[in-house]
Amino acid sequence: MLSKFLPFLTWARRYTRADLGNDVIAALVVTIMLIPQGMAYAMLAGLPAQAGLYGAMLPLALYAVFGSSPALAVGPVAVVALMTAAAAGTVAEIGAPGFHLAALWIALLSGGMMLALGVLRLGFLANFLSHPVISGFITAAGILIAASQLRHLLGANISGKTLPEVIPSLAANISGLSVPTLLLSALVLAFLFWSRTGMARLLVHLGMSAPLAKLLAKTALLVAVVGSTLLVWGLGLDQRGVAIVGDIPRGLPPLGLPEFDLSLIQILAAPALMIAIVGYVESVSIAQTLAAKKRQSIDPDRELVALGLANLGAGVSQAMPVTGGLSRSIVNYDAGAATPAAGAITAILIGIAVLALTPLMFYLPRATLAAIIIVAVVSLLDFRALPRTWAYSRADGAAMAATMAVTLLIGVEQGLLAGVGLSLFLYLFRTSRPHMAVVGQVPGTEHFRNIARHAVVTDPTVFSIRVDESLYFPNARALEDRIMQALADSPDLQHVVLQCSAVNYIDASALESLEAINDRLRAADVKFHLTEVKGPVMDQLERSHFLHELTGKLYLTQFDAMKSLAPDVTGPCLQAARCDSRLSAI
Amino acid sequence: MLSKFLPFLTWARRYTRADLGNDVIAALVVTIMLIPQGMAYAMLAGLPAQAGLYGAMLPLALYAVFGSSPALAVGPVAVVALMTAAAAGTVAEIGAPGFHLAALWIALLSGGMMLALGVLRLGFLANFLSHPVISGFITAAGILIAASQLRHLLGANISGKTLPEVIPSLAANISGLSVPTLLLSALVLAFLFWSRTGMARLLVHLGMSAPLAKLLAKTALLVAVVGSTLLVWGLGLDQRGVAIVGDIPRGLPPLGLPEFDLSLIQILAAPALMIAIVGYVESVSIAQTLAAKKRQSIDPDRELVALGLANLGAGVSQAMPVTGGLSRSIVNYDAGAATPAAGAITAILIGIAVLALTPLMFYLPRATLAAIIIVAVVSLLDFRALPRTWAYSRADGAAMAATMAVTLLIGVEQGLLAGVGLSLFLYLFRTSRPHMAVVGQVPGTEHFRNIARHAVVTDPTVFSIRVDESLYFPNARALEDRIMQALADSPDLQHVVLQCSAVNYIDASALESLEAINDRLRAADVKFHLTEVKGPVMDQLERSHFLHELTGKLYLTQFDAMKSLAPDVTGPCLQAARCDSRLSAI
Repeated sequence: MLSKFLPFLTWARRYTRADLGNDVIAALVVTIMLIPQGMAYAMLAGLPAQAGLYGAMLPLALYAVFGSSPALAVGPVAVVALMTAAAAGTVAEIGAPGFHLAALWIALLSGGMMLALGVLRLGFLANFLSHPVISGFITAAGILIAASQLRHLLGANISGKTLPEVIPSLAANISGLSVPTLLLSALVLAFLFWSRTGMARLLVHLGMSAPLAKLLAKTALLVAVVGSTLLVWGLGLDQRGVAIVGDIPRGLPPLGLPEFDLSLIQILAAPALMIAIVGYVESVSIAQTLAAKKRQSIDPDRELVALGLANLGAGVSQAMPVTGGLSRSIVNYDAGAATPAAGAITAILIGIAVLALTPLMFYLPRATLAAIIIVAVVSLLDFRALPRTWAYSRADGAAMAATMAVTLLIGVEQGLLAGVGLSLFLYLFRTSRPHMAVVGQVPGTEHFRNIARHAVVTDPTVFSIRVDESLYFPNARALEDRIMQALADSPDLQHVVLQCSAVNYIDASALESLEAINDRLRAADVKFHLTEVKGPVMDQLERSHFLHELTGKLYLTQFDAMKSLAPDVTGPCLQAARCDSRLSAI
Repeated sequence: MLSKFLPFLTWARRYTRADLGNDVIAALVVTIMLIPQGMAYAMLAGLPAQAGLYGAMLPLALYAVFGSSPALAVGPVAVVALMTAAAAGTVAEIGAPGFHLAALWIALLSGGMMLALGVLRLGFLANFLSHPVISGFITAAGILIAASQLRHLLGANISGKTLPEVIPSLAANISGLSVPTLLLSALVLAFLFWSRTGMARLLVHLGMSAPLAKLLAKTALLVAVVGSTLLVWGLGLDQRGVAIVGDIPRGLPPLGLPEFDLSLIQILAAPALMIAIVGYVESVSIAQTLAAKKRQSIDPDRELVALGLANLGAGVSQAMPVTGGLSRSIVNYDAGAATPAAGAITAILIGIAVLALTPLMFYLPRATLAAIIIVAVVSLLDFRALPRTWAYSRADGAAMAATMAVTLLIGVEQGLLAGVGLSLFLYLFRTSRPHMAVVGQVPGTEHFRNIARHAVVTDPTVFSIRVDESLYFPNARALEDRIMQALADSPDLQHVVLQCSAVNYIDASALESLEAINDRLRAADVKFHLTEVKGPVMDQLERSHFLHELTGKLYLTQFDAMKSLAPDVTGPCLQAARCDSRLSAI
């Protein structure tokens, strides 16, 4: 029972020496990525470099205890960093003391919300963020992240949170760029992009085994960091306009709740909720993908609890908000992480780095961190998703396009809200105009299909209609109108049969519509029948008077109804040959 | 073609002398009700008495030309008057010049919105106001209307728009009531309630024919007005604290656009939209009910156009917003109105009254108008609707209760919004947790039903599941989880068959889920099949790669699939006797 809440009790009992070896190797590789990425994402979030490093310590340790995914690498990630910068930017300027305070409260609030949603098992609410919306959002966020790094890559004073702010600022300030910074950025970017494929190939060419070469290629970030730091220090580039990271406090983060400020919390609650949801959705989809590869499964609600605790940990240890990151998780998985202990070992390694290595990072150029961010977000961009989604479904495509456009032009929170709102609106709009099919018997079977799409047999005295939607208030009237029209069009009509195979729910408005249909058909001396009513719908109808007032009958199947109402047509048609003559007649 | 937009061209061509006779009689009866009701509803809206009379002139004439319902009696109605008072009250105090201006702009804005919705054929959007929400709203509005008339009935200074405002005001000011006003109110109320049934009975008792007695009983309002006016004038009650209507300007209303004020329009746009929707929904449901009695039909979008023009007419003629009223429409219908000309004749009769009779109304006590309002709204109250709706559907009952509570406690607009919002939320919540049924063959048929509710036959190598909801983003993951669970539970599984008879739509998120299911089943060497996919869903799937990747097949029917995948079980079971042994085994 306890192990349900503390998954580590399960795996810790069976932990072997081989597991430890695998976990240490994975942790080493992840740490080498995480030190530069953590500092880079802290810069992206507008926070001091140590906030990123601290975000890779206590939160990782907490996730290792409460999380269920062995492969998920928790820590600072780009999209959450961008959202944090946007939210904290509404209460303070970057660099002002209130800014870091706001980021801590965002971590605490989103952590608390994740924890509450997980405990209440409300993780499914995150499903309201549809795939097209999240995919469009991530691509747009990637573009904004890249744009936000132009100031560091060029060494020019470019600002702005959305494209309409960044582009004029770029045009106005491009002339003030720092040539040494630009050259350094170009060098680091070229090396990092080359390293993604070329480095492993070169190492193999030099005689190394392929798996080792692939693993060593992951040190490219470290090579870039060390190389560019040495370059700046050796050539004194910091005196020539190249911005550097500077002092990073040595030692472990102080623990404690940040200063309490109710008005701050009220402002940050809504963005914190969005950060919680985006962070959760990203993290859980990575964890599920990696779990599926090993035929394992993860419990989304438990993931929420673990991520919530990780963020609460971030909030009390001067760290930035965290979640599961795609690139590091894949590296973690590929490097063979066996259990969540890999995360705990990573946290220890980062702690050692913070205790020992921070003075070495003094001359680390900010341009290198910006280049690391650029390389990371390029993999987030998926421009082909929009045409692909649009081709499949106009509604999904529109939601995706709206999310991207609003995110790029107005802001990240507004973009997400626009996407979710439009998705829901378009769904409701669709259900308010349901597809209805007049059906007939497929010859030789007991099956009934749309007369407009299949060669089927019908009887002029029976109007059989299938409505392809639950009957509820936005569409209650549509069925009424369709049946009244059929009544006006068919002088021989004696029976109207409503096939309810696609009706999953009948609300009170629709019940009134059915009663109205029944009354009006009764007045015209036409009977009203229902077929294939599902169990839950039947339970509901039995709580009303409708079934007593129904002029016709309830049939288990459409075939039963037709056998009884139009026996001359329906029975013989079970033998396909016998109804071919009828088919040709319609 | 033109007659489609001007329905009067159709009926005017066939207009007979008999029609004219019927229309004149109906118009006379309606006019006798409309003069006191118009003044009463103007008072309810916080407007001078003439705004109600003017609302029964130009708007009626316009509706007669453009409307399609012969029986619908357009004019001032209680609920719209209450909503107008609430909306105009947000920009000015009752009696201030800005208040009447706001009411005129509400008429123009809601008229313009109705017209636009009708021209764009968006009338179906009004269906998003569910029956329970509108029913709860009308009952709550009726209570608020009655509460608002206490000041006139008691002659005490009671104010407030919601119950939490009215009740303390009543407690504080009850001691200041005017005894003559109270006595007069009691007398008029008693007479009016008695007249609803007792008056016709008395007249029959006195030897009158029943239909004539019923018609004459409709003059009760006039009797109350004339009687109480004479009483006030004769006894000089206006000097003893009985409030009277006073001067009503004689003559036709001046025509022209009210003063333009953009900020006013911005404030009033949202309430005007709600007034437009409530007015339209009320009106169209009355018109449809009356049309159905004569086997006629009305076009909702044309009604919107006609009501929109009527309100635009109200806005340019110093009148209050209008819509179709229930009680007068029934009287109009019962009195034999043959065509919309009855409305035009009513408008002329009201015009004559405004030209000639207004001086006679000087001593009309406001208490009489309040009593008329009370009698009218009592018929709006339906307290049994809430328990009845709750018994049928918790979601509908909750939406109704929320609408009533918020309307009574916070305000009319908030109440409507709460009801619509809650209805939609509960629907989305329901669809996010779809009902799923594992199905088996009903012996002796080709039909498949829930194994939990029916005695059906299944095969251990085949898992057949029917999901009773369209597959879209909020529920995309639910099916994935259910099938993965079945995979884990059933070691013999070879086939998963998804019966899509209730799937009306598959969005991009759900498509990704289906692809994930297909991939994971493929890895476990289990085939994935779809059956009974509807035409529109099929069209959509064909635009994706999913059908190429599907490991199994598409079958027209569930029976076809089972015949092919489990022939030993499914074929023999067509003869019911042959599968009884299998049935008993499961």
